[in-house]
Amino acid sequence: MSSVWTQARRAARMNPSIIREILKVTEKPGILSMAGGLPSADTFPVAELKAACDRVLTENPKEALQYAASEGFAPLREWVAQRVQSLGMQVTPDQVLITSGSQQGLDLVGKILCDAGAPVAVETPTYLGALQAFTPFEPIFTSLDSDEQGVDPAAIAKLPHDAPGTRFAYLLPNYQNPTGRVMSLERRQAAVAAAKAAGVPIIEDNPYGDLWFDEPPMPSLASMWPEGVIYLGSFSKVLTPGFRLGFMIAPPELYPKLLQAKQAADLHTPGFNQRVVYEVVRNGFLDEHVPKIRARYKANRDAMAEGLKQHLPPGCEWQMPKGGMFFWIRLPEGLNAMDLLPKAVDAGIAFVPGAAFYAHTPDPRAMRLSFVTLTPPQIEEGVAILGRVLRAALDDIGAESAP
Amino acid sequence: MSSVWTQARRAARMNPSIIREILKVTEKPGILSMAGGLPSADTFPVAELKAACDRVLTENPKEALQYAASEGFAPLREWVAQRVQSLGMQVTPDQVLITSGSQQGLDLVGKILCDAGAPVAVETPTYLGALQAFTPFEPIFTSLDSDEQGVDPAAIAKLPHDAPGTRFAYLLPNYQNPTGRVMSLERRQAAVAAAKAAGVPIIEDNPYGDLWFDEPPMPSLASMWPEGVIYLGSFSKVLTPGFRLGFMIAPPELYPKLLQAKQAADLHTPGFNQRVVYEVVRNGFLDEHVPKIRARYKANRDAMAEGLKQHLPPGCEWQMPKGGMFFWIRLPEGLNAMDLLPKAVDAGIAFVPGAAFYAHTPDPRAMRLSFVTLTPPQIEEGVAILGRVLRAALDDIGAESAP
Repeated sequence: MSSVWTQARRAARMNPSIIREILKVTEKPGILSMAGGLPSADTFPVAELKAACDRVLTENPKEALQYAASEGFAPLREWVAQRVQSLGMQVTPDQVLITSGSQQGLDLVGKILCDAGAPVAVETPTYLGALQAFTPFEPIFTSLDSDEQGVDPAAIAKLPHDAPGTRFAYLLPNYQNPTGRVMSLERRQAAVAAAKAAGVPIIEDNPYGDLWFDEPPMPSLASMWPEGVIYLGSFSKVLTPGFRLGFMIAPPELYPKLLQAKQAADLHTPGFNQRVVYEVVRNGFLDEHVPKIRARYKANRDAMAEGLKQHLPPGCEWQMPKGGMFFWIRLPEGLNAMDLLPKAVDAGIAFVPGAAFYAHTPDPRAMRLSFVTLTPPQIEEGVAILGRVLRAALDDIGAESAP
Repeated sequence: MSSVWTQARRAARMNPSIIREILKVTEKPGILSMAGGLPSADTFPVAELKAACDRVLTENPKEALQYAASEGFAPLREWVAQRVQSLGMQVTPDQVLITSGSQQGLDLVGKILCDAGAPVAVETPTYLGALQAFTPFEPIFTSLDSDEQGVDPAAIAKLPHDAPGTRFAYLLPNYQNPTGRVMSLERRQAAVAAAKAAGVPIIEDNPYGDLWFDEPPMPSLASMWPEGVIYLGSFSKVLTPGFRLGFMIAPPELYPKLLQAKQAADLHTPGFNQRVVYEVVRNGFLDEHVPKIRARYKANRDAMAEGLKQHLPPGCEWQMPKGGMFFWIRLPEGLNAMDLLPKAVDAGIAFVPGAAFYAHTPDPRAMRLSFVTLTPPQIEEGVAILGRVLRAALDDIGAESAP
C-alpha cells in the first residue's frame, strides 16, 4: 500500500538507538545488567523531593502550574550561575537557559548550529545521544583522534585543513560516556588553545563532573574561553533524571537564538519541576548529598576494578575511571563485543557494545560497563560471568586464554 | 568583533515571538490583560496534584525518578487511547507518544516531515506556535483560504496544483487559536475528503476540544482518516500547563520515526509528571473537573460578548466562540491593531494583534482577546477601555464612531 506521507530527508538518517534496543533485552528479570547509563535509584532524594513538591504546591501553586518563561525559573538560573563558579566560570543568570534534560541542550545546539553537509567534530568514541541529537540536522561528522586523556589537541588543530567550516567540536571533559576518561588540566588548555587557533568553537557536555572520586574536577573549558564555548549541565546524575532538568550556559551572542529554538521546541521546561528542584538545592543540599553518591559510586568502581582484575582473561585492557559511571573495556584480538552480547545475556549479564559510540569506524573490541546500578556483590558476580563468557569465546577462536 | 560561531541557515529564519515580546509589556502590574493564551490558574486542581505527587513518591519513587521509556508511561498511554474514543478514534496505546506539551508534538512533526523548500499548508490565520515550530525546518508555507468554519476544503483540493508536494495541512478544528472558530461536521468531512483526494495528510491539533460550551466536539479528523492524520492533544488546558504534558497519536507507519525524534529531542517526557497526571486522571477526575472549567469559561465568554456588544464602536465584527478561550475581533477600516496596542497598554489593557498569526499577508485589522484569565467584572472593565481606545482612534482618523 502506498503511503500518503512523505518523510523529510533527515528522517532517513534517524535510526533506532542500538542502546535502546539492547536495554529492552536486558530488562528481562534476573539479568545482572551493566548496560544501562542509569544512575543508582538508591541515590534519589525522595524525602526531600516529596517535601519540596508539597511546599511548591502549598506556597506557589498557581505560578508553578501556569505557563512560564522559556528561559527558565529565574531563581534556578541564578543558582546555576553561582554553582558553576566552582568550575572557574563567571557567568550571569542571563546566560543560563533551563532545558528539558541536557539532551535537549544538544538538540537546540544542533538546531541553531548544524547545516546539512557542514562538519561537526566529535571525540572517538563519543556520547551516542549526541550523535542522535545532531544527526537529524545532517552534519558531516569528523572523528577526532582521542587517547586516554580525551581528545587530541593536534586533531583539533588540523580541523581547518581536514574539515574546513567545522561548526563546533563536541567534547566531554569529565568521566566521558562511554570511556570514563577525564581530560587533564594541560590537555584542556591545549585543546582550547587549538580550538581558538583553528576558529572552532566548543560544545562542552558535563553531565558527570560532580561524580569525582579523588580530586574535584578541573576548570571547565568554558572557563578558559567563555565566548567560544556552550556549556551543558544536568541535574540527572546528582538528583534525579525523572524530572528531566538540565541547563545550558551560552555566550550572550548565541543566547537569543537558543532561546527561540527552546520556545519552538516545547515552550518551556516544566515550571513545577524547576521550582521543586530549586527548593531542594537552594540551601546547599547538594553539598551533603553529592558526596554520598560519590562514596557509593567509588565503592562500586573499586568492586568492579577488583572483579575485572580477578576474572577477565589476559589481553583485556581498561583504565581506572576517576569518576563517573563507566568502565571501558577493550577485548583481546579476535573478539567482537556485539557478537558476544547475546551469549552474555544468555549467561545472565548485559553490557553495551562499544561500537554504538562511534561516528565512524567502530571499535568492535570495545564494551562499556556501568558500575553504578548493581551492588558490589552483584558487580563481582556479573564480572565473573563476563570473565567466563570471554574465556569461552577465546576458547572458541582457539586463542590463549589461560588465567 | 568577529564571531567564532557560524549559525545554521535555519537560525536566520527564527525570530523572537511577537506575542512573547507583547506579553512582557503586558506583565506590568495593573494591566487588564486579554492578551495571554493562558488558562485560568483558578482551574488548576492543586489539591489533587499535591495528593498525587505524594502518592507517586510514596508508592513508586524509584521508578518515577529514574530514566524512563521514550514512548511514555504505559498506563497513561492506555488512558489516552481510551479517552479519544469519545472523538470517534479507535487507536491502540502503541500509537500514543507522550510529549513535553503538544508544542513538542509540532516540533517532532516538523523534524520528520518538513524539508527545506517543501510546502506545508496552514489555515488563515493559524496558531503562531506552530509556525514557530515548523519554521526551523524551512518549509514554504501555503495559507489556505478559511472562513468562519475554518479551512475551505476547496483550498485543500487545489493544493496539488498550487503547492505540489505539500507535506501536510495543519488544521485546528476546535475553537481555533486565534479565531475561536470550530469546524462543523460537514466541513470536517469535506476537508478530509479533499485532503484524501489531494493526497495531503493532516496534522490535527486539538488543545481546546474539551472546552466546549453547548455541544460536545464533533468527531476528530483523525477518526475520519486514521492513516492520514497525526492527532495532537494536551493536558495543558484541562489540568495544568506547568507540567508540560501532551500527546500525539500517529499512524503506525510514522510512529517509529516520531519516537526516534522524541528520543533525540529530550530522551523522554518527565516520568514523574506522567505518573502524577495519570494518578489524577485515572479514575474519571476529568469528567467532574472539566465541566467546571467549561462553566467558568462560558460565563466569561458571555461577559465578554455582552461587553463587546455594549462598548465596541460600530464596524467591529466578531463571531460568538462556541468554546475555547478567544474572541477574534475585526476592527473597522482604517484601524491597525498593532498600532493601537501601545495606546491600549497606556490605557490599561492588552490584546494580541492578529497579524502575528498569519504565515503570509496579515490582517492588520484583527485582534485576539482572551476571555479566560480575567473575571467577568474585569472583562467588562477591560472591554469598556478597549471601546474607548477604539473610538478615540476612529476620531483621530475622522471616521464615523457614533455609538
